[in-house]
Amino acid sequence: MKVKAAVAQEAGKALIIETVDLEGPHLGEVLVEIKASGVCHTDAYTLSGKDPEGLFPAILGHEGAGVVVEVGKDVKSVKPGDHVIPLYTPECRQCEYCLSQKTNLCQAIRVTQGQGLMPDGTSRFSLDGKKIHHYMGTSTFSNYTVLPEIAVAKIREDAPFDKVCYIGCGVTTGIGAVINTAKVEPGANVVVFGLGGIGLNVIQAARMVGANMIIGVDINPSKKSLAEKFGMTHFVNPQEIDSDIVPYLVNLTKGGADYTFECIGNVNVMRQALECCHKGWGVSVIIGVAAAGQEISTRPFQLVTGRVWKGSAFGGARGRTDVPKIVDWYMDGKINIDDLITHVMPIEKINDAFDLMHKGESIRSVVTF
Amino acid sequence: MKVKAAVAQEAGKALIIETVDLEGPHLGEVLVEIKASGVCHTDAYTLSGKDPEGLFPAILGHEGAGVVVEVGKDVKSVKPGDHVIPLYTPECRQCEYCLSQKTNLCQAIRVTQGQGLMPDGTSRFSLDGKKIHHYMGTSTFSNYTVLPEIAVAKIREDAPFDKVCYIGCGVTTGIGAVINTAKVEPGANVVVFGLGGIGLNVIQAARMVGANMIIGVDINPSKKSLAEKFGMTHFVNPQEIDSDIVPYLVNLTKGGADYTFECIGNVNVMRQALECCHKGWGVSVIIGVAAAGQEISTRPFQLVTGRVWKGSAFGGARGRTDVPKIVDWYMDGKINIDDLITHVMPIEKINDAFDLMHKGESIRSVVTF
Repeated sequence: MKVKAAVAQEAGKALIIETVDLEGPHLGEVLVEIKASGVCHTDAYTLSGKDPEGLFPAILGHEGAGVVVEVGKDVKSVKPGDHVIPLYTPECRQCEYCLSQKTNLCQAIRVTQGQGLMPDGTSRFSLDGKKIHHYMGTSTFSNYTVLPEIAVAKIREDAPFDKVCYIGCGVTTGIGAVINTAKVEPGANVVVFGLGGIGLNVIQAARMVGANMIIGVDINPSKKSLAEKFGMTHFVNPQEIDSDIVPYLVNLTKGGADYTFECIGNVNVMRQALECCHKGWGVSVIIGVAAAGQEISTRPFQLVTGRVWKGSAFGGARGRTDVPKIVDWYMDGKINIDDLITHVMPIEKINDAFDLMHKGESIRSVVTF
Repeated sequence: MKVKAAVAQEAGKALIIETVDLEGPHLGEVLVEIKASGVCHTDAYTLSGKDPEGLFPAILGHEGAGVVVEVGKDVKSVKPGDHVIPLYTPECRQCEYCLSQKTNLCQAIRVTQGQGLMPDGTSRFSLDGKKIHHYMGTSTFSNYTVLPEIAVAKIREDAPFDKVCYIGCGVTTGIGAVINTAKVEPGANVVVFGLGGIGLNVIQAARMVGANMIIGVDINPSKKSLAEKFGMTHFVNPQEIDSDIVPYLVNLTKGGADYTFECIGNVNVMRQALECCHKGWGVSVIIGVAAAGQEISTRPFQLVTGRVWKGSAFGGARGRTDVPKIVDWYMDGKINIDDLITHVMPIEKINDAFDLMHKGESIRSVVTF
């Protein structure tokens, strides 16, 4: 079939809207009509050419929502008409990782997904007979896409696509880091470094689970008011304090934070986030993605005296199991997504979404089809 | 009273056996007759002068066992005749740290302990009217010592002093790191870096909790046979393999270790210990003490993909609660201490114990009085 997609022909260039050929679903795959897709920093990172694993040409996009149109052979868990969110972290419920119940990092299709291919080693997308790569197993910058059955989460039908698409990445990453990775408990003191979309989702999850102090750290004072709306109780601008940020935060929290979250991708901030944790039990979670090759450091004494350093990918969420719950939380008013989606535009304007992101003028832009 | 002690008069010099003055117990303190004391690397580190917090003159020793002789005012939990193990990590059961139930790092007397003093800010030891510092709040290289009530664990009376004194530091540090800090579960694959006394205790705890592979890593092949006796299932000498140690261990464990323990104090090995952990859930515990100022590093990707970096001090054990249990395990034959104590000598020969340690000829030497 012919589909409309924003194609990344080469690194560093704008996306081009093209009419692309899409093959129907193979065994165990589903064809999904994408209704809306968020535009995320990870898409921009790959498009920039800095991602060493980036492949071109490709159809980017990994934060979508849509409707199942057709299912391939042996597909049992979804049917045409089902509303779904594509999952770049699948959940096969069969592999060693899924069965461990200790991680969400399902490995069932990792190798082919990393190669920009479907699990059988081929691509469904082509243009003028030439293969186009899939991206993160999702390729949501297309009005139709094909996904493995294990990479779609079935969601309720009354959820608006142009809001819940954000649950496909940013919302779940931030909320999941709080509830799955850190397991923040009521009364805890929390510090969030970086008040972009991920940081705001960390903040609202901390509020949801009953955290006490929710301290936001950002060098941009314009982030303050929205972060307060999401539950931030204290704002710290590292450029406006007299001391180093670590002793400042240890003092503010009367001994250190119970939980900290790095939502930037800066290795120096990752160290600060660890070291402002409370002696004896503070847990620091790295969410931000650092540039290739960069390293984190600290003195081992920080760990020997009880701080724990961990990280989170897709919020530790098992997509098929957890994403529908987060959709429910949005529909029940427990979490706010509407205020995070600052721009909605048709797919034809997708390059504007990247421009808004680079200028820091958007929290999240969503493209619709 | 006059007591017999090995005094560290100055850094880098041998200990001197002296007759020292010991004041009786003040409010909340107990006088203990020390019957035996292990000689630990930490004593040697302080004696060497490399410990930036080391104070002289001092009476070292922190791995003792003995009998309560006299109690000060308001002491309720022990009485004369009780057998006890001194605790360099006390357990007051009152401070924020004890009450958190998240850490064993009781802070009740931390400041004065670090100053080589009793909680009231004075020393009980003196020589010719000149103050001698306490050490780690214990000073077990003396046939009598004074301790805060919160820093003694009451143990059963049939336990031999010259064995269970080792539970005052090394045994609990190794065993506790496995059961309290890492919480190793049955069937787990474990890698232990460094097969000294701590590493051997990690190994026997891993066996006790039902670990599957228990891999010991050491550059000294003479460590192999004793480690096997303690439960090691595989020995790896990094100098005898063709590849780097990390991929070698990932391959040996078919994906990475569930738990790793660094028992050396080498920051490069700490990195290896983290990076050979299993993606998704592997936990690395730092037990070894690195030299002052040294740092650990890794790529944040290691944590974002699910590895956890933590540390352990005194095995995460709450001394008054947990030490008596470990004494029971020894008496019940669940753990082996006898084979770890390679030398026993009178206090007068204590400098020989340090020599044996430096030459690598002992696992643990114990001095008796």
